[in-house]
Amino acid sequence: MPYEIDETHDPKLESWVESANDPKSDFPIQNLPLGTRVSIDDDGDSWLSVVTRVGDMVVDLSALAASEIIPDEDDEWAFFGVDAIAADGTWPSLRRQLQQLFSRDDSRLRSHTDRDEIVMPAEEVGLGLPFFNMVIDYTDFYASLFHATNVGSMFRPDNPLLPNYKHIPIAYHGRASTIVPSGAPVRRPRGQLLPGATIADGDPVFGPCKLLDYELEVGFVVGRGNERGSPIAIGEAEDHILGMCLVNDWSARDIQKWEYQPLGPFLAKNFATTVSPYIVTMEALAPFRTPAMERAAGDPTPLGYLTSEHNTKAGGVDITLEVFLSSAKMRDSGAEPVRLSRGSFKDMYWTIGQMLTHHASNGCQMQPGDLLASGTVSGPTRDARGCLLELTWDGDPFASPPKVVPGTQRTPIKLPTGEERKFLADGDEVIIRGYCEREGYRRIGFGECRGIIEPAFEG
Amino acid sequence: MPYEIDETHDPKLESWVESANDPKSDFPIQNLPLGTRVSIDDDGDSWLSVVTRVGDMVVDLSALAASEIIPDEDDEWAFFGVDAIAADGTWPSLRRQLQQLFSRDDSRLRSHTDRDEIVMPAEEVGLGLPFFNMVIDYTDFYASLFHATNVGSMFRPDNPLLPNYKHIPIAYHGRASTIVPSGAPVRRPRGQLLPGATIADGDPVFGPCKLLDYELEVGFVVGRGNERGSPIAIGEAEDHILGMCLVNDWSARDIQKWEYQPLGPFLAKNFATTVSPYIVTMEALAPFRTPAMERAAGDPTPLGYLTSEHNTKAGGVDITLEVFLSSAKMRDSGAEPVRLSRGSFKDMYWTIGQMLTHHASNGCQMQPGDLLASGTVSGPTRDARGCLLELTWDGDPFASPPKVVPGTQRTPIKLPTGEERKFLADGDEVIIRGYCEREGYRRIGFGECRGIIEPAFEG
Repeated sequence: MPYEIDETHDPKLESWVESANDPKSDFPIQNLPLGTRVSIDDDGDSWLSVVTRVGDMVVDLSALAASEIIPDEDDEWAFFGVDAIAADGTWPSLRRQLQQLFSRDDSRLRSHTDRDEIVMPAEEVGLGLPFFNMVIDYTDFYASLFHATNVGSMFRPDNPLLPNYKHIPIAYHGRASTIVPSGAPVRRPRGQLLPGATIADGDPVFGPCKLLDYELEVGFVVGRGNERGSPIAIGEAEDHILGMCLVNDWSARDIQKWEYQPLGPFLAKNFATTVSPYIVTMEALAPFRTPAMERAAGDPTPLGYLTSEHNTKAGGVDITLEVFLSSAKMRDSGAEPVRLSRGSFKDMYWTIGQMLTHHASNGCQMQPGDLLASGTVSGPTRDARGCLLELTWDGDPFASPPKVVPGTQRTPIKLPTGEERKFLADGDEVIIRGYCEREGYRRIGFGECRGIIEPAFEG
Repeated sequence: MPYEIDETHDPKLESWVESANDPKSDFPIQNLPLGTRVSIDDDGDSWLSVVTRVGDMVVDLSALAASEIIPDEDDEWAFFGVDAIAADGTWPSLRRQLQQLFSRDDSRLRSHTDRDEIVMPAEEVGLGLPFFNMVIDYTDFYASLFHATNVGSMFRPDNPLLPNYKHIPIAYHGRASTIVPSGAPVRRPRGQLLPGATIADGDPVFGPCKLLDYELEVGFVVGRGNERGSPIAIGEAEDHILGMCLVNDWSARDIQKWEYQPLGPFLAKNFATTVSPYIVTMEALAPFRTPAMERAAGDPTPLGYLTSEHNTKAGGVDITLEVFLSSAKMRDSGAEPVRLSRGSFKDMYWTIGQMLTHHASNGCQMQPGDLLASGTVSGPTRDARGCLLELTWDGDPFASPPKVVPGTQRTPIKLPTGEERKFLADGDEVIIRGYCEREGYRRIGFGECRGIIEPAFEG
């Protein structure tokens, strides 16, 4: 079984970086996520280096390699990206060595003359996209049954779930060029909008999106690819996954509604997708694996190519996911961000192994650094809904008997400033946080995925 | 107006490369398309260089730059990709200089000692993807009204065209990792297939695709990008387009039918997409521009952001497109490939300028080297249908009164060996050819886009 719990997860391990020992820290030395630093010199030239994070400190692995504190005989991890570290199997050994290097009693780096060029306060370091600042292929799934049922209930009250949903991990390709790091502002998109409910009420107009939304998602990153034409067996799927991150799949609901048939969402999604700064590796997540979500009586058994013992017993990951909103007015008045939802990634109908295996089942070539996202993570309860489209909607498809209310009936969320939101306003900041907690283990966190909405383009 | 006819299109210009003067050549010195050479040395190391083509000869532009026959003071086009050549505006000047260099009376290269390292027979040169052998983002449109109506008639006889079609250049994101150069074999994909017409007839099974198809498409390549958040005005759209190529969007119809709702085609398309070896630049295509397809009475006028005088008068491109099929048995018996269809790119409902402008209208960032494809190019007549799904189908949505036949009724195509095809068999080779012809101008061709179907993965 891949990614077993071992001595690297021992909760008693502490670091000489004291902030890593805070039980509330996302980044104890049991975590050691991977990110990408973007450095810019006085001439404006920029370069990239792979980093990890310990407590409040960012660790530049290229600088560490140059110091030769940890031998890097083949120059394997000094000059290459996250993908190279993952693809050649360097990571498990490097992870152990990094954990030792930052352990309380290890003085090699702590008292090294180059220490300040290797270990820096996180707030002083600029981080790009965690996959060496670039994605070639990005795929977005639709793996939450609760989300699919909620959204289906709005648009097809009599038939919320399409017949393929429980057989296929449904997905579509996203746009790589507009994947942006946490903190990058997001401009409200413009697009074709219908003035009424359907075209019968009037022709479309072009203008700023009025129903701007976020989608809480979890991403996972390919470490090892496959050859074009050859599938990835479900039993080996997780060997191909480097780790996970947080994703906000910003969505323009009014553009989406008018454009999405028959080929799926396009401009409603591809103006921006925000990802968190670190890939939390599968090694760090080992203590938090859970069984795949139990299928209800009468649900079809997944086909053989999507079934394995590991997947059934431990294909899930229990990541607590929270979304916060902060309006411009809230920030001006010093109010804390308001929590909109709280759920867990364990409540997904399809596992990350099933998603990857399905993706490659036709021979599609996966490559190191590819980003796959889960689709909106919504749970069974109202407060675990992962987007405003669901959160401010008054239907409840899980009530018995089903209580389905047309999607246009919305109850706004009240903010501490007295403001109300059905969808996002200019100046709103959306903050996604994710972390794993389990009795007997250190908390493993993802940090934050943030973005502020800017006004639409004028011109 | 961009890309005007000028003296570079003079049909009397001839080359000292005699094969370029053949009136049937795709590559006279009025064309000068851009491609990418993949060189591999004895140690297995590979490198890329930008090439053009003159008659039967490939011209290595990196080797040409090194020769200093044409001054390249800033090293602009020696070491960079097609995208750099386009993005910095080098191309129009370089095109003129190349045309002069290969003109009949120019002896600089013809009698140069390095000539054989610069000019090589095409059959001795390995070419990769024309965009410096890599695509980051690939988008596929659906811009033929005839194709959309044909396909819609099969799946929704009473409502072939969805209400958004004549307002929006519909598109979806494709997979970049499986875009392959002409000649690369294509493995028959496996996937989930329904044994009957719907799920009511039985649960899906996993196995080799039975309804494998090609799609004749035209691609166009971004030369200059835009900033994230800022649109591309329709009046400037063509300034951002470097040129065009041929695309085969291989499609698994049975996988597509079961998977595509609600998020669009995914595994039915992303196993392989074949492109022709050269980008024929917009400069070379200037004499073949046509008005945008005339809209029928009652069709909506495109919204303002999709309208310009140039687009209406000359937004189209008259490229003759032909598809040929050759089965393994035909090749064994020495039979010539059979032509399946013949149409023109001028019959598209949406222009390339409208497609690009729509794509960036929400602020989506376009980057040099991005590939956009038109969707299946089908014309108004039966012999101009651009895929087997349409060609072997017996309906005729353009008959009056409409004669709509369920999509399952198929008339096979007969091959000279006595074989029949409703869809592609293993060993079939699909060959797409494209060229522009107009009285008073030299023929400008695209070469070929080829691929042979290999049997499905077994394991």
